[in-house]
Amino acid sequence: MAARIEKLTSDIAWSTHDRIMVKGQDLCGDILGKQSLGDVAFLIMTDRLPSENESIMFNALAVTLIEHGMTPSAIATRMTVIGAPEAMQAAVAAGLAGLGSVFVGSMETAAHLLQDAIPDPGAPVDIDVVAGEVVADLRSRKAQVPGIGHPIHKPVDPRAVRLFEIAEQTGFSGPYVALMKRIAGIAGERAGKELPINATGAIAAIASEMGISWSVIRGIGVISRCIGLVGHVREELTNPIAREITARVSRETSADAIRASEQSA
Amino acid sequence: MAARIEKLTSDIAWSTHDRIMVKGQDLCGDILGKQSLGDVAFLIMTDRLPSENESIMFNALAVTLIEHGMTPSAIATRMTVIGAPEAMQAAVAAGLAGLGSVFVGSMETAAHLLQDAIPDPGAPVDIDVVAGEVVADLRSRKAQVPGIGHPIHKPVDPRAVRLFEIAEQTGFSGPYVALMKRIAGIAGERAGKELPINATGAIAAIASEMGISWSVIRGIGVISRCIGLVGHVREELTNPIAREITARVSRETSADAIRASEQSA
Amino acid sequence: MAARIEKLTSDIAWSTHDRIMVKGQDLCGDILGKQSLGDVAFLIMTDRLPSENESIMFNALAVTLIEHGMTPSAIATRMTVIGAPEAMQAAVAAGLAGLGSVFVGSMETAAHLLQDAIPDPGAPVDIDVVAGEVVADLRSRKAQVPGIGHPIHKPVDPRAVRLFEIAEQTGFSGPYVALMKRIAGIAGERAGKELPINATGAIAAIASEMGISWSVIRGIGVISRCIGLVGHVREELTNPIAREITARVSRETSADAIRASEQSA
Amino acid sequence: MAARIEKLTSDIAWSTHDRIMVKGQDLCGDILGKQSLGDVAFLIMTDRLPSENESIMFNALAVTLIEHGMTPSAIATRMTVIGAPEAMQAAVAAGLAGLGSVFVGSMETAAHLLQDAIPDPGAPVDIDVVAGEVVADLRSRKAQVPGIGHPIHKPVDPRAVRLFEIAEQTGFSGPYVALMKRIAGIAGERAGKELPINATGAIAAIASEMGISWSVIRGIGVISRCIGLVGHVREELTNPIAREITARVSRETSADAIRASEQSA
Repeated sequence: MAARIEKLTSDIAWSTHDRIMVKGQDLCGDILGKQSLGDVAFLIMTDRLPSENESIMFNALAVTLIEHGMTPSAIATRMTVIGAPEAMQAAVAAGLAGLGSVFVGSMETAAHLLQDAIPDPGAPVDIDVVAGEVVADLRSRKAQVPGIGHPIHKPVDPRAVRLFEIAEQTGFSGPYVALMKRIAGIAGERAGKELPINATGAIAAIASEMGISWSVIRGIGVISRCIGLVGHVREELTNPIAREITARVSRETSADAIRASEQSA
Repeated sequence: MAARIEKLTSDIAWSTHDRIMVKGQDLCGDILGKQSLGDVAFLIMTDRLPSENESIMFNALAVTLIEHGMTPSAIATRMTVIGAPEAMQAAVAAGLAGLGSVFVGSMETAAHLLQDAIPDPGAPVDIDVVAGEVVADLRSRKAQVPGIGHPIHKPVDPRAVRLFEIAEQTGFSGPYVALMKRIAGIAGERAGKELPINATGAIAAIASEMGISWSVIRGIGVISRCIGLVGHVREELTNPIAREITARVSRETSADAIRASEQSA
Repeated sequence: MAARIEKLTSDIAWSTHDRIMVKGQDLCGDILGKQSLGDVAFLIMTDRLPSENESIMFNALAVTLIEHGMTPSAIATRMTVIGAPEAMQAAVAAGLAGLGSVFVGSMETAAHLLQDAIPDPGAPVDIDVVAGEVVADLRSRKAQVPGIGHPIHKPVDPRAVRLFEIAEQTGFSGPYVALMKRIAGIAGERAGKELPINATGAIAAIASEMGISWSVIRGIGVISRCIGLVGHVREELTNPIAREITARVSRETSADAIRASEQSA
Repeated sequence: MAARIEKLTSDIAWSTHDRIMVKGQDLCGDILGKQSLGDVAFLIMTDRLPSENESIMFNALAVTLIEHGMTPSAIATRMTVIGAPEAMQAAVAAGLAGLGSVFVGSMETAAHLLQDAIPDPGAPVDIDVVAGEVVADLRSRKAQVPGIGHPIHKPVDPRAVRLFEIAEQTGFSGPYVALMKRIAGIAGERAGKELPINATGAIAAIASEMGISWSVIRGIGVISRCIGLVGHVREELTNPIAREITARVSRETSADAIRASEQSA
């Protein structure tokens, strides 16, 4: 087997004994004490520090999903920390593992669809035509429209409303936002009821405006939820509920079998 | 088995159809567009929004560990994403799983030690006496002093230097910082060489000043690395190195066995 | 909000103070000391204990992927255990996280295709016709044929050859195996080179013969690799290589930047 | 920085185009169709294939913890799969992440204690003396006796009883088993109630007899639960309960806050 000669490269970070460089910025000189967590997250996702409007918009996207109470990911984290309290990182990791196509990760599906439909946001585009094609294509594949509808937040998702408002103010209300809104409109007309754009749909559209590729957009949700899950670890350590949830689920799922077993005894 | 009646409670978040409340703040009205990612992370970890100085200090702590190049966690994430590119959340989770007692999570060990040594930071304390006791106790248990030393950043860790500077400026240079410095001093004297406080040691001391319990302090590192790992997923998707690393490691670890097998054939 | 009354049920296991029932079997009376690990895994995946032939076949499927040396999942596990040696379960979890669509989890894609193409394995089927349709459909969607080809094992994957041999002997060489072989044949003809069925392709076909749904077939690979990854944790603890790999990757990816920085100094 | 020359080595597996060797065994020639899943797991954990008695004993240890119904790890897996049904490996990984010091991983604590107390199981040892010292040491450190007690299985854990029976029959009832029993006896005398050895305590003692190091013994539980968790993924996909659990927990934890909010409206 001939040795492949291929050099390993990376443009993220490097360090010497007295210096750490991150995306071209000196960590100690340029970042610490000067740049906020959200702005450095923007740097990591786009290779540059944000302008003021970009900072406002990106931080808004990034905080939107930090918390929504007792979500499946929060419960997974809590179930994990009671078994491994010495490894809180594993508990957060367990919670993140479920941010797939259904919850949170759904922003990827929506962004993928938007970015495929409008490959060049600078070129002229007829939103009505494109939206019609997108919805027709989804119907032909029997696929759901991503980024719309919510079991609790009806008739509108207040997070999406507010994010679109901030997008308007900061100059990020362009073709992707327009397309997302038109798609939701058509889908709602066909369904005969208002189908609101939800938080992940709004994040998908606005992050697309900011030039973030659909292939990493899920990262915004992962970062958000990571922060929220640290909060659930914190609360579970002082106000535990995971054992009681487990006991209840265990009792309920095995009640009939145990009763039958006792009667036959 | 009698049913236990115990109510499940949580003080993190709740929502109605038109409202999401997080730690007493209205997400849409008070947070989106107004609070930054780092400040909401502070809210999640302390139950209140930060003052200006708290914001500067906490954001500095939270960005410190975002990136340090090709760390074990970054490599774990990259190895994962090439197998499951459709599940980037699982790749980030894989990288986080290793933030245990050795890397990043070591801030928990240091903070635990500091907070045990000074249970009440408001009470008068003789730092020299306490530091001596702490080091003596570690020696008697043959335990290492946590939070000091670094394989690359010698003789000082520039991140710790800068963080302590910011702590001085923002009013977070109190007894925990003094104790951490004194412990490092004693350990260095005994080792006969300067043993610098490293980044996790500095974070442990300063987060203790900010009132963050040792039991969740590791969360600061988990949040930081989560952001960095999203960056590694992003780069691996466009400039992949994980397959080449795997090929090299595989070749090298099996070379002798394959050679022997070929010679005996 | 009206309370939904929906009962939580499960048919997996239940226990009383003196008894644990798993899938209708008494753990202490019927399983411990009587049933092997592989046979209980079969029970978990099919709701019944295996016949002798099923036991031979299923155990063969389940051991096939236990080890293939320094795979990406093995490296991810090793990177994790050096950071969190106190949490080996997290290291195994990190390795498993990457068993997605590309490695190991690819058996799901192949099984899904086979089971969609032959919904009822008992009904008569023209393998040539179905195989032609399957390949044509994949081509029209520009999708790869799953379960064929291997970077090292050429021109045949010896694991697939052996598994098909055992399938013949145990009576599991039916329509799914025939279809998988015919699909590989057609794909090879079109590619102008032999495209061997690989290990995951063989497992997909044979597990389909055994009645295991494509939606859980990936579980066979997950169980296998879990065992292998425990072995990598074990070796990393006594013969560590992860730190050296990290050091090499870090040096190589940052060499140019450090050199440039030194020259400009 | 001088390049370190250190060779990466591994004794687990290697392969050529037509051969895969695992722990010195030819995968296709010696393992597939001949060795069961449990026996190959033994090979991975001990570097050799088991004798008949070793096979019976090890398989019994390995199947013991496969299932115990709705445990925290099962619930974590189910919460994950509803968010990422396309990544069942991530759901299993999430469940495994919690097998730490409290559940399952507790076998490591017990085995560590036993193997420290009897470093050489071939040397003569006074079990009563050693057991007394062990319990006294635990008391002085205010540490719990690991491997004893169970919330449901009282006054004895039937799994431990059965495992010790098999150990007797297969020749694995030596000093570690005797020590574990004597420790439980002393602890029970002091507590004034019978404190039964639980399943993890029995596995710890018997695996120690089999020469498995405490540092990897947790791997037995990880392998077991991995199989069980695949079963929970399977059931959740066809008989889902995770959404209903989430809905109930969410309602209950936010009920008071929502009520207060509605009254003040």
